[in-house]
Amino acid sequence: MKEKADIGLIGLAVMGENLVLNMEDKGYTVSVFNRTVDKVDAFVKGRGKGKKFIGASTLEEFVDSIERPRKVMLLVKAGKPVDDFIEKLIPLLEPGDIIIDGGNSHFPDTMRRTEYVESKGLLYIGSGVSGGEEGALKGPSLMPGGSPEAWPHVKEIFQAVAAKVDNGVPCCDWVGENGAGHFVKMVHNGIEYGDMQIINEAYHLMKDLLGMDAFEQHEVFKKWNQGVLDSYLIEITTDILAYKDEDGSPLVEKILDTAGQKGTGKWTAVTALELGIPLTLIGESVFSRCLSAQKDLRVKASKLLTGKSPDFKGDKEQFINDLEQAIYASKIISYAQGYDLMMEAAKEYKWNLNYGGIALMWRGGCIIRSRFLGDIKNAFDNNPKLENLLLDPFFKDAVQVAEESWRRVCATALLNGIPVPALSSALGYYDGFRSERLPANLLQAQRDYFGAHQYERLDSPRGKFFHTDWTGRGGSTASTTYDV
Amino acid sequence: MKEKADIGLIGLAVMGENLVLNMEDKGYTVSVFNRTVDKVDAFVKGRGKGKKFIGASTLEEFVDSIERPRKVMLLVKAGKPVDDFIEKLIPLLEPGDIIIDGGNSHFPDTMRRTEYVESKGLLYIGSGVSGGEEGALKGPSLMPGGSPEAWPHVKEIFQAVAAKVDNGVPCCDWVGENGAGHFVKMVHNGIEYGDMQIINEAYHLMKDLLGMDAFEQHEVFKKWNQGVLDSYLIEITTDILAYKDEDGSPLVEKILDTAGQKGTGKWTAVTALELGIPLTLIGESVFSRCLSAQKDLRVKASKLLTGKSPDFKGDKEQFINDLEQAIYASKIISYAQGYDLMMEAAKEYKWNLNYGGIALMWRGGCIIRSRFLGDIKNAFDNNPKLENLLLDPFFKDAVQVAEESWRRVCATALLNGIPVPALSSALGYYDGFRSERLPANLLQAQRDYFGAHQYERLDSPRGKFFHTDWTGRGGSTASTTYDV
Repeated sequence: MKEKADIGLIGLAVMGENLVLNMEDKGYTVSVFNRTVDKVDAFVKGRGKGKKFIGASTLEEFVDSIERPRKVMLLVKAGKPVDDFIEKLIPLLEPGDIIIDGGNSHFPDTMRRTEYVESKGLLYIGSGVSGGEEGALKGPSLMPGGSPEAWPHVKEIFQAVAAKVDNGVPCCDWVGENGAGHFVKMVHNGIEYGDMQIINEAYHLMKDLLGMDAFEQHEVFKKWNQGVLDSYLIEITTDILAYKDEDGSPLVEKILDTAGQKGTGKWTAVTALELGIPLTLIGESVFSRCLSAQKDLRVKASKLLTGKSPDFKGDKEQFINDLEQAIYASKIISYAQGYDLMMEAAKEYKWNLNYGGIALMWRGGCIIRSRFLGDIKNAFDNNPKLENLLLDPFFKDAVQVAEESWRRVCATALLNGIPVPALSSALGYYDGFRSERLPANLLQAQRDYFGAHQYERLDSPRGKFFHTDWTGRGGSTASTTYDV
Repeated sequence: MKEKADIGLIGLAVMGENLVLNMEDKGYTVSVFNRTVDKVDAFVKGRGKGKKFIGASTLEEFVDSIERPRKVMLLVKAGKPVDDFIEKLIPLLEPGDIIIDGGNSHFPDTMRRTEYVESKGLLYIGSGVSGGEEGALKGPSLMPGGSPEAWPHVKEIFQAVAAKVDNGVPCCDWVGENGAGHFVKMVHNGIEYGDMQIINEAYHLMKDLLGMDAFEQHEVFKKWNQGVLDSYLIEITTDILAYKDEDGSPLVEKILDTAGQKGTGKWTAVTALELGIPLTLIGESVFSRCLSAQKDLRVKASKLLTGKSPDFKGDKEQFINDLEQAIYASKIISYAQGYDLMMEAAKEYKWNLNYGGIALMWRGGCIIRSRFLGDIKNAFDNNPKLENLLLDPFFKDAVQVAEESWRRVCATALLNGIPVPALSSALGYYDGFRSERLPANLLQAQRDYFGAHQYERLDSPRGKFFHTDWTGRGGSTASTTYDV
């Protein structure tokens, strides 16, 4: 065991413990610290016993135990705890030392902290860490961004602990400046909300429209996991549907249908609204969780708003095949929207994002890992300047093959009273995206009518604005923002 | 003419000019000021000539010209200009004087300013003002909130200038504490986005699915304006569709289909996400504007993603009737969602909102004014503790009558490649809302599987949480937020 640690970690909750065990397993000596110091002892004498860990009982001792330039990683609760530790660490660290935040921080916080920590002569990394407990132990997806000068110092250890795909390619690469890593992690989480919602809708349709029980559905998901939908989330859904409660019935059916959330999906939707990017599938997914949480109201409403009950008359096998295509197409839309958001953020915040690299980081280790992400990587390898995933030949073909099935699934769901907000919103986006003309000309006319907001014309160059006195009653004055 | 003015207004853009002309017309003497002082002269010698206006050339002179307790109304650009004028006014005003912000301020700013201005011994009102230029002149909808002690001083003048409905009932009443007025105005604007989007989708369907030209559609909207859809936005759409360009063709068809936005619809959707309320229709409406703005990309995509073209084979008359019902049902959903948001905000910010009163304020004067709002007023008169509009007998019946038509319209649109994000999102919400069980049980199982987030059970009391080792590989430790 070395005298000094290669890296130090603060925060010995499940994620932290698993991540340092992973680091140690790759040959690194890791110093560990925790606010409640008991946990350090318990860990070093417990899961960490006989391994290359240095347990520190004070922050001074902890910092002192790490080789320079020090790499100090925080895996603490996002928000104030991160700022508090940064404040405590700054006086103890020396120029060139690196503070790494591996928590679920919001990207504007990481932007602010990068600037602040750099102003103190130190370096900063905010890294997305995905994969949950198991990922942390066996190989997470890591999405580091922050001070570019810090990257060469952490690259080796980060890529060593990260998940590997395709014969050892690590699911970790440099994302970009300041908050870029946490931004990309946020989009990852938003996409995770979307992927889960799509699967939930498929489950809902199979259960309430086709009348299939969980064990029958298990067989369908198992088959889907061999095809284009092959992914971690389909895989765990397969497991869940087969899991029996003590009485032998499917446990999933006994679980209360109120979704929780930790807020990162919400951040993604809010950011999309702020940046003006139509992220409809993730937006609907977040709202679906909100609606599921209104359980008491829904129970009340179900007694009053009886209306349509499902009544399926078609071919069940055909519908299940259609459903696979509907999921696939919707997933393509969701990723197209997520990438659109990242592209806009890159413009807004002046980040150089490596879009293919991001797909590779998500390819393994994290919750949304899938075969599909390899196809996204290929799309950006083929055309690094691709403007939208749907314009890539592979995805264009895939969505067009799926199109009729997707329409049938959505129409059938809507006619039968089964909510499919994500699948139908994705289809609405697809049809809007491929519309040379949308009805927003009427909208612009309305805005000009009541607010003199002016409009552009199809037969006139962009940037030339017109106002019409639609009623003959108003003035010819175009509206301006209130200008005093 | 009185020696002193009843009220003073800062900001002589179109809205400000029209509002003071309205005040003067109701018998009030109004003092006016503008940062660019030329505008004061131009107004007093122009549209204000021979009327009871006092034109001030300095802020001191302006404040001095107003009767105590002074009512100083700002109609300036939202943001810094409001804070700047507040700073300039504070030293000139005396205890009990009232600063009124009638601009499009964001409600958290109004919350902050109310507290700040009150701390200086003054009173503050943040008031939503809706109705555009014409409304300001002829009677706007006014939604004042802020310091409750200020209301008796401005009530008379506000209700005098406000729009009137049903034999003189003013579309203005006290909304609530601090930011409540601007909050309600924000929700109004969000609902306006939704109403407009719904109409746009109907127009799109009539145009591209039924092949109707603008003049034919004019007749349909004209008829709709006699029924349940009777509203200002349907009325102006009727006008717009009939409006001929110089060559005799419908002007609306020459307008570029890229929607603009001033951001208040976006605020509404963001606030809904923050408060965890499923505001899906407005969310989709905002995203639709964003997608419409991606014109160049859409043109490119339309050449590649050819896919489905509309091919309508049904009964056109029947479809138009279905469409009216689909619009009506979607509108009910949109208002149900908007009210849900206001109810949650009232809890969060401790406001006593008068829900029927809000419907009455929107009943006339503003962009979303409609007969429909009278029905909402009735619903809250019948049950002031109504939890959701859809549980009111009138709206429950209305939506159930519309249901089959609504489903047909959405399914037909989705099968024919016409995007109807608002109509279909509303239907998805309706079906989710009336679902005793949603598929979120699977979602909770997924979250517990990959993140040990725990779940509740249907056969166990709420608040009791369970964790399952789904694979047999993980530990029995439930996840906590990182706790150091």
